[in-house]
Amino acid sequence: MKNILVIGAGRSASSLIKYLLEHSTAENWSVTVGDVSLELVKQKTNNHPNARAIVFDITNDQQREDEIKRADMVISMLPATMHMNVARDCVRFKKHLATASYVSKEMGELDAEAKAAGIILMNETGLDPGIDHASAMKVIDDIHEQGGELTSFKSFCGGLVAPESNDNPWGYKFSWNPRNVVLAGQGTAQYIEHGEYKYLPYNRLFTQIDTIEVEGHGKFDAYANRDSLSYRKLYNISGIPTMLRGTLRMPGYCKAWNVFVKLGLTDDTYKIEASESMTYRWLLEAYLPAGKSTTKQKLVAFMGNEMDAEALSKIEWLGVFEDRKIRLANATPAQILQDLLEEKWKLQPHDKDMIVMQHLFEYTTKDKKTQKLTSSLVVKGEDQVYTAMAKTVGLPLAIASKMILQGKIKARGVVIPTTKEIYEPLLAELETFGIVFEEKRAN
Amino acid sequence: MKNILVIGAGRSASSLIKYLLEHSTAENWSVTVGDVSLELVKQKTNNHPNARAIVFDITNDQQREDEIKRADMVISMLPATMHMNVARDCVRFKKHLATASYVSKEMGELDAEAKAAGIILMNETGLDPGIDHASAMKVIDDIHEQGGELTSFKSFCGGLVAPESNDNPWGYKFSWNPRNVVLAGQGTAQYIEHGEYKYLPYNRLFTQIDTIEVEGHGKFDAYANRDSLSYRKLYNISGIPTMLRGTLRMPGYCKAWNVFVKLGLTDDTYKIEASESMTYRWLLEAYLPAGKSTTKQKLVAFMGNEMDAEALSKIEWLGVFEDRKIRLANATPAQILQDLLEEKWKLQPHDKDMIVMQHLFEYTTKDKKTQKLTSSLVVKGEDQVYTAMAKTVGLPLAIASKMILQGKIKARGVVIPTTKEIYEPLLAELETFGIVFEEKRAN
Repeated sequence: MKNILVIGAGRSASSLIKYLLEHSTAENWSVTVGDVSLELVKQKTNNHPNARAIVFDITNDQQREDEIKRADMVISMLPATMHMNVARDCVRFKKHLATASYVSKEMGELDAEAKAAGIILMNETGLDPGIDHASAMKVIDDIHEQGGELTSFKSFCGGLVAPESNDNPWGYKFSWNPRNVVLAGQGTAQYIEHGEYKYLPYNRLFTQIDTIEVEGHGKFDAYANRDSLSYRKLYNISGIPTMLRGTLRMPGYCKAWNVFVKLGLTDDTYKIEASESMTYRWLLEAYLPAGKSTTKQKLVAFMGNEMDAEALSKIEWLGVFEDRKIRLANATPAQILQDLLEEKWKLQPHDKDMIVMQHLFEYTTKDKKTQKLTSSLVVKGEDQVYTAMAKTVGLPLAIASKMILQGKIKARGVVIPTTKEIYEPLLAELETFGIVFEEKRAN
Repeated sequence: MKNILVIGAGRSASSLIKYLLEHSTAENWSVTVGDVSLELVKQKTNNHPNARAIVFDITNDQQREDEIKRADMVISMLPATMHMNVARDCVRFKKHLATASYVSKEMGELDAEAKAAGIILMNETGLDPGIDHASAMKVIDDIHEQGGELTSFKSFCGGLVAPESNDNPWGYKFSWNPRNVVLAGQGTAQYIEHGEYKYLPYNRLFTQIDTIEVEGHGKFDAYANRDSLSYRKLYNISGIPTMLRGTLRMPGYCKAWNVFVKLGLTDDTYKIEASESMTYRWLLEAYLPAGKSTTKQKLVAFMGNEMDAEALSKIEWLGVFEDRKIRLANATPAQILQDLLEEKWKLQPHDKDMIVMQHLFEYTTKDKKTQKLTSSLVVKGEDQVYTAMAKTVGLPLAIASKMILQGKIKARGVVIPTTKEIYEPLLAELETFGIVFEEKRAN
């Protein structure tokens, strides 16, 4: 019998835990699930005979060490910044680890030690990063094997709400970490286009957007991710002239979100004194030039032609022109905005989410023909627990963990799913769950 | 004989060292001046019999301790972030310290220890902070003593170029730390107006500006400083409805500088790969939306009505549309811009700088009359060494140090020049150097 330890039983762990338990008898697994909330763990494990539900406190060194020692495979669903104590223990006690997070500098530095210990620190094995790596590398390797050369690669992903649950003017509800949504894009987006580096700072990130179309699903806004450049090396396309990664939202979202960016309401670096004594309208006034007109009129004048009637209606729908008290005390503007959005953009029990991913490849074939290939994925959630986000983050982790425990992955050290031995079986099994990319070719 | 140790002999130390040496015989002082550059120290001390010129390495603990031990008074002209080792040694060896820097959190935490050691850690005793504190508190205390109540206090300061040396379209040359000029205002400006908090983020700081007039010197652009709120407590005017501090530039500067802010060229948080292989025009292109027109046409289209012909001519004068190689390798955009500006905005040997400060007070008198009081200071430099900046930063430090050595300041611990025992004699002696505020009253 193999022991799997899952740390964290939040929303994105639902499909992961379900998969592990469903395979536990056939694979002879005992699955321990730990979270600060035992209730959450019990909901997710549902008295399954192969499940062990525990209260898990990541700051308790003794418990963490004991649990990792008794495991064969650890899956950490902790926030990205909290993996390191787990990863170090995994190296120390020679246990495999899987996460859906980016390889941090500290994680990367464990590579040699992990290799020496004979274990895998499998990272970036969720949706984005995760399925994006696997699906992109499959196409890229294929083009290279056929003697082709990539000239352009653009890749987009968004966690959205399904059309049937899309009942607010933003076309957005939270299926993922709300804080990340509010702070998204801060810094400067860096990409390369026709061989020239491009830098797009946050103050105009949501104004210089692309429009992406996914057949059968319509159009989407796409804003550039912060880092597109480092993927060139990861994907073995260092010389590619055009490389861009971006995030998808429903059309019109970016124009409206730009209002908050320009006002300064997404700033998380300072606190508003006595914010609990202010109303949302009053907060808006604090960011608008002085004047005698109404707050709404002032906002219209302030934004000029950067805002249209549709964007204004989105802003208004959030209730920010209302004299309703802010609920958070001494909070940053970003925290206040997040608190309001968590109320307005809440995924309701009957709601379904949807994830959309699209890769756009351009390449020249061996015989110098220009080819375009579009590879698109759309996944809808089943309900509020088994969301598209939980499926597409949790299933790659679960499948990769199974492959590791079955001894099917030879790689050791810090690994991401960009190699054939991982992405081929991973994508094949994901297809059995309806996670299927549609490919379309053109000249 | 009293020993004074001056750490740092750069541009802003010229007037300080001159004053100390001129008073050294009468006051019975030996003045040690230390800097990494012995040449700089020798230039500034000029073989004066009471001067001791040394090479000083702030990272050499032994030397720092030895020199501080033999001093009675230490004056640190180091960058603000480098004072702490000096300050801790001053507390340990019971020596007074003076700096022209803001009281950092760490400096503030030394207050109790400094009091126990019976010494003064005198900070914020230059121009801004320094002369601004002293001159503002003189007026504020006076208004309060006469039973008046302040309703508005706005205060502005700028290190500029004198009109006779103003021969570039920006009306600006560096008389002060160039890096601070390039990064100025990053974050969010916070102030209060008519009882309402106002937040002005960096992305529009240079578009929402004030115009300030100083009699006989014309008009100036004024952009808001990052922090105006904390001065309410420092100045004992916690309940004041309007409080704003700002920075002065020649008219039109802000509109042109906004181009760099909007483009993203003042960002210091990431490096441009292989920047040394790029030209300035190419760099600009990397920040502009793609298109077929010239770089200049693209910039005009990109800025829209946020840029006028005058601003464009300022930008063009810097040579950023030229295909001239960038000199710095793998540098941040801010570093590249700073390097270019240091060449273009260099204070020439024949140039004179100028500092301008203006306080605008509004108050109600004891008998409920509304009064306005404008207090303005303009100081021109003598030459490139005894600049207005060096005078107005160095003389307050020198005078305060003399007062401390003469035992005329009773305060102990972390002190700034906002109390009468300091600002009265300080302002009186500054007047003998032509540093005189002009007051103007109106109803």
